[in-house]
Amino acid sequence: MPLRPRPGKRTGMADLPRPEARVPRGFQDKRARDLRAERRILEAVGRVYERYGFEPFDTGAFEYADALGKFLPDSDRPNEGVFALQDDDEQWMALRYDLTAPLARFAAQTWETLPKPFRRYAYGPVWRNEKPGPGRFREFIQCDADTVGSARPEADAEVIAMAAEGLEAAGLPADGFVIRINNRKLLNGLMDRAGVNDPGQRLAVLRAVDKLDRLGPEGVRLLLGEGRLDESGAFTKGAELGGEAAEAVLAFTAAGGGSRGETLDRLEAVVGGSDEGRAGLEELAAIGRALDAMGVSPERARVDPSVVRGLEYYTGAVFEAELLGEAAQRFGSVGGGGRYDDLVARFTGQQLPATGFSFGVSRLAAALRAAGAEAAGAERGPVVVVAFEQAGMAQYLRAAGELRAAGVAAEVYLGAAGMKAQLKYADRRGSPAAVILGSDELSGGTVTVKDLDLGRELAKGTGDNAAWREGRPGQVNAPRAELVATVQAIMARAAPGPGA
Amino acid sequence: MPLRPRPGKRTGMADLPRPEARVPRGFQDKRARDLRAERRILEAVGRVYERYGFEPFDTGAFEYADALGKFLPDSDRPNEGVFALQDDDEQWMALRYDLTAPLARFAAQTWETLPKPFRRYAYGPVWRNEKPGPGRFREFIQCDADTVGSARPEADAEVIAMAAEGLEAAGLPADGFVIRINNRKLLNGLMDRAGVNDPGQRLAVLRAVDKLDRLGPEGVRLLLGEGRLDESGAFTKGAELGGEAAEAVLAFTAAGGGSRGETLDRLEAVVGGSDEGRAGLEELAAIGRALDAMGVSPERARVDPSVVRGLEYYTGAVFEAELLGEAAQRFGSVGGGGRYDDLVARFTGQQLPATGFSFGVSRLAAALRAAGAEAAGAERGPVVVVAFEQAGMAQYLRAAGELRAAGVAAEVYLGAAGMKAQLKYADRRGSPAAVILGSDELSGGTVTVKDLDLGRELAKGTGDNAAWREGRPGQVNAPRAELVATVQAIMARAAPGPGA
Repeated sequence: MPLRPRPGKRTGMADLPRPEARVPRGFQDKRARDLRAERRILEAVGRVYERYGFEPFDTGAFEYADALGKFLPDSDRPNEGVFALQDDDEQWMALRYDLTAPLARFAAQTWETLPKPFRRYAYGPVWRNEKPGPGRFREFIQCDADTVGSARPEADAEVIAMAAEGLEAAGLPADGFVIRINNRKLLNGLMDRAGVNDPGQRLAVLRAVDKLDRLGPEGVRLLLGEGRLDESGAFTKGAELGGEAAEAVLAFTAAGGGSRGETLDRLEAVVGGSDEGRAGLEELAAIGRALDAMGVSPERARVDPSVVRGLEYYTGAVFEAELLGEAAQRFGSVGGGGRYDDLVARFTGQQLPATGFSFGVSRLAAALRAAGAEAAGAERGPVVVVAFEQAGMAQYLRAAGELRAAGVAAEVYLGAAGMKAQLKYADRRGSPAAVILGSDELSGGTVTVKDLDLGRELAKGTGDNAAWREGRPGQVNAPRAELVATVQAIMARAAPGPGA
Repeated sequence: MPLRPRPGKRTGMADLPRPEARVPRGFQDKRARDLRAERRILEAVGRVYERYGFEPFDTGAFEYADALGKFLPDSDRPNEGVFALQDDDEQWMALRYDLTAPLARFAAQTWETLPKPFRRYAYGPVWRNEKPGPGRFREFIQCDADTVGSARPEADAEVIAMAAEGLEAAGLPADGFVIRINNRKLLNGLMDRAGVNDPGQRLAVLRAVDKLDRLGPEGVRLLLGEGRLDESGAFTKGAELGGEAAEAVLAFTAAGGGSRGETLDRLEAVVGGSDEGRAGLEELAAIGRALDAMGVSPERARVDPSVVRGLEYYTGAVFEAELLGEAAQRFGSVGGGGRYDDLVARFTGQQLPATGFSFGVSRLAAALRAAGAEAAGAERGPVVVVAFEQAGMAQYLRAAGELRAAGVAAEVYLGAAGMKAQLKYADRRGSPAAVILGSDELSGGTVTVKDLDLGRELAKGTGDNAAWREGRPGQVNAPRAELVATVQAIMARAAPGPGA
């Protein structure tokens, strides 16, 4: 019985009202290429983090809204920016917007029973109910590592060293990024000295400095003063610092450069006059010594007072992983973190020191792709066994099974199309080879294997002309018993798959 | 400077109202042991699925509520049982309750551009807004594989063979489970002959038969007839079949046993008189031939007419993976699937044949644990470098770095406790060894490594008495340069970690 095309037939369901098949705004479907890239990153980074003694941990998607608090970046409004709903028992729940808030809740809940300090890493989706846009999603994968219960600067240094090693394991070249380190206490010390004590005003200063990369010193100067009118005509109110204080802040942010020690010396002159500033400098010096002991070079991790991080909850060291070179313009920061000693205290009233690093997995994957640092050849599809007629199906299935048993991904074509369309299908899947068991092959005890990579090369005019002249380019007829060996020989040519 | 304990101090946050740290009802935190077990399963199964040519795929957590439809098991009420909320633009969105509905939406949306048939596997959390209970969560991980666009019985057979291979790769013993196969068309044929044509009545028959495992033939007989009063006094209305029809259904469900061919012969006698019944028998026979060709034995996959699956949307073959032996009582089904040719038609009005298999990852992990089939030694913690004083920190960090560079997970203790508590911490982490660099070691250029596994054995009275008599059981002093080799030698003893 020849295979007959099976046109889609109308069903009883055709009479029901039909919903439109569409993805909710700000969400996305992920295909093999993106998923594989993200999984490779998470596996590589997870191996590094486990080697540092961090254990895997995960929480549910929901937290009670009161437990999440109002620590969203760029939002002072509780419960805005999250996906919230009311449970049957009237309690408000919200989808987690990061992996730090659930960790703080867990630490507060279970602290007595945990081995301390508690080191964990976590990865998974987080959700932000924000206005979606091109490349701006409302669901994305984060990967975090945190140490809870250690106030030591070595805990910050360890997170920094581990982040650097993790990013390199994920595929970033060693000279492709730098971790910039600062300490919130320095800026606090500076504001102490300048007499800026209002928490709202301090937060406004923080957020102004956080925009340095985007707006440059001129833009930040406006935001430190009266405010700034942007290109769209929108006005952002400023921190209302006096001119002298604003210049001191700008001078502070420009004090980076040179070795970790040189930067600290320059900063000593600016903030050494305040107790908090001195405490921050001591912490940075201790972090530097620990990084030296761990062999993390100053090129890899340097002190940079222009880094502040937008989040309100950081209390000490802050750090940001920045791409260097061409990718810097497009991607800039690929991750960051810092010390947040007060987050668990929201629940318990007792301070519990904590520090961590977080990065966006899709963003890093995009940066790796842009840098050409993606693993090659990963998008190989399965070998496709062409299906000619129903009567041959057992033969096709057996052939695919033999290939799989040898570790070669393989499938029988199970659609309703003819040979030409089947080869096109195999090509679109990125298959390295197609297996042909037609009537000639079956009766002769042979198998024909088409080298699809070679076919692709020939189609591009870059292939092996000798094979072309033979009249059957990239096609081998072999005894049936040599199927696996023939396919493996073709795959060993190791040509890359198609870009799609 | 000696390390001083750092008691939690009260912070400014202590004066704010404090939320209670608690997990939302029906959600759970997952620690290392469970996460590692789930990840091992997904990696093993993913490798098998990719070898069958299935590509990874994922969708967002949300779907529009109308796209999800009302295909929840045990629920005829649209949008009940899901977590739904209204988006800014007034559209209702709901968290996915399975991985099939999003696939159907995706297939309908992108069919024209997909390589066809489309084979994908997916895993991730799904959410059900149901009453939580002990061991009954509202969020759990599913893993699905589906072929969309093939009406061939070989596609069903491939999914069955792949599921069996996947479950075995995950750790189930080959004789520890069976895949039971049936076809909805048989029961439909039987009902044709019995004159049961009302869709509601047919669905009631389906759901009655689906309870066979739990209630036995007597309970199902009641549900096929007037209805059944359960132990709690609740009454479930029955399908209201006549006595003869009810007995025919029960006889049908009992027609399994013997080889796939023998069962089919017995079923021929029962349902062969109806067109739909005959079509179902032919499909089952073709599935059997394909399974034979793929080397799947009748012990591994057998025809069993008592399997129906509770979901309304199945249109042909259905299958269920059942544990055998002791685990069967506690876990029973660990996964299932079937053919659902009409699900995409909800969107397009055009039938698009599809078949797939799904299993619950946590449930399989629990079954593997109960069967003692969990990978051993997976819960090793990191080597812990004991921290005595701040001045030694660079030495401790260097030691941990050397171990990590050799691929050994290692960390410096960064809390504030003394040596005894640090060793207790290492023990709770399941550390194989503790590294001691005290003042004696540092001045003498040596390192002391404690074998914590041996310590645990000695504490249980099962250890090496010779070592015990030496006075320093499981403790080695070695030249500092031999740190890594000493730790590796101790770890090579390969004792299992603690159960915690």
